[in-house]
Amino acid sequence: MPNTGTDHIVTSYNEELAALAQAIAEMGGQVEVAIENGTRALLRLDRELADVTIIADQRIDDMQRQIDEMAVSMIARRQPMASDLRAIITAIHVANDLERIGDMAKQLARRSLKLEGINLQPTFYNGVKNMTALVSRQVKDALDAYANREAAASVEVCNRDDEVDAMHTSLFRELLTYMLEDPRNITTCTHLLFCAKNLERIGDHATNIAERAYYLATGKQLTSDVQQLQRQQIKA
Amino acid sequence: MPNTGTDHIVTSYNEELAALAQAIAEMGGQVEVAIENGTRALLRLDRELADVTIIADQRIDDMQRQIDEMAVSMIARRQPMASDLRAIITAIHVANDLERIGDMAKQLARRSLKLEGINLQPTFYNGVKNMTALVSRQVKDALDAYANREAAASVEVCNRDDEVDAMHTSLFRELLTYMLEDPRNITTCTHLLFCAKNLERIGDHATNIAERAYYLATGKQLTSDVQQLQRQQIKA
Repeated sequence: MPNTGTDHIVTSYNEELAALAQAIAEMGGQVEVAIENGTRALLRLDRELADVTIIADQRIDDMQRQIDEMAVSMIARRQPMASDLRAIITAIHVANDLERIGDMAKQLARRSLKLEGINLQPTFYNGVKNMTALVSRQVKDALDAYANREAAASVEVCNRDDEVDAMHTSLFRELLTYMLEDPRNITTCTHLLFCAKNLERIGDHATNIAERAYYLATGKQLTSDVQQLQRQQIKA
Repeated sequence: MPNTGTDHIVTSYNEELAALAQAIAEMGGQVEVAIENGTRALLRLDRELADVTIIADQRIDDMQRQIDEMAVSMIARRQPMASDLRAIITAIHVANDLERIGDMAKQLARRSLKLEGINLQPTFYNGVKNMTALVSRQVKDALDAYANREAAASVEVCNRDDEVDAMHTSLFRELLTYMLEDPRNITTCTHLLFCAKNLERIGDHATNIAERAYYLATGKQLTSDVQQLQRQQIKA
């Protein structure tokens, strides 16, 4: 009978760990939708979608608080061993990054409201569109690497952040050129500069999540040495 | 004898809690220095100070990792009660916000390197200077409220964030005006727009810390209702 008892506790504990992972996955899903909606609101100047995105961010904030509560309650009741404890603390960190990404998506949506009625040229948008596609993929891949604890996939996300940064730099220069060419572009392009910055920061948060995933998978910090080594291996 | 033993454990546990608080205070001190140095590097275009700030950020990142380790190790070994556990988890969150503030300070320093040799007018800087003074105070007050678990002081910091936002909006418009007046100002003012944004975000992180401080002091979330009430009381 004590055996059954223990089994029951262990099963239930595993269930709780699974529920925590599930909560992160759901929050991740909401955040992916928020990026999609926030950038779509921006690219189409869709006020309704912007409002939806802004309101949905409250739900994302609530999810972070819930994950925090779940994690604290699990630690308090279960007194987990070091490795489980680390996984639970990591969930708190990942939820934090997801909340920030949600915040960036909200800011993109808000920015679209400021752009309404302003002179807009489709060419301004190309860079933002490309960057959106790249950072959305980064978030998705980081969440997958985290869910599956895949070291190699985590490293890939971290390495690809250089691409995000390069794209941001090039977009920054491009937008500056439009501003210099015609002062009437200044206001619009300034707003778009901030959108590009928001996207770059979403990329940074995706990298943070990937670094946490790497740590969970390997027990080691992902240093630049490891990234370098992996790059050489890919090239070789 | 068992009593001495228990006393010893309790004392040592309290010492550990004190050490964690001390680590946060030290990290907070480093971050305050980083803001000071980062903005000074920017306002004086001081390349040396910029380098110092950028290098010092590694130390801040290390401190965050150490606080994380301390917290996890305490939880694992001490199995703290709910209220202590919450304080320890809060320390993890506060260290996270401090790390982000440090990152903003580094970005201000980096931005100063980009401004070197560019047409600079002292008037551009006034708004940045004023905003720096305000957000530095916000960080300091938030850290004090956290260290002393003061609810009223926490609410003040959160309320004052409206001032930070208002200053940011007005600075944004001012810099935009300089750009529209003379295209030669575009590059400089664009960089300064991002500096203003960094300062605004430092203010947001200070608010996060104050919200956590409020929660530790009262056991309740700081909602906008509470802020509203407090404002009315101050006015009355």
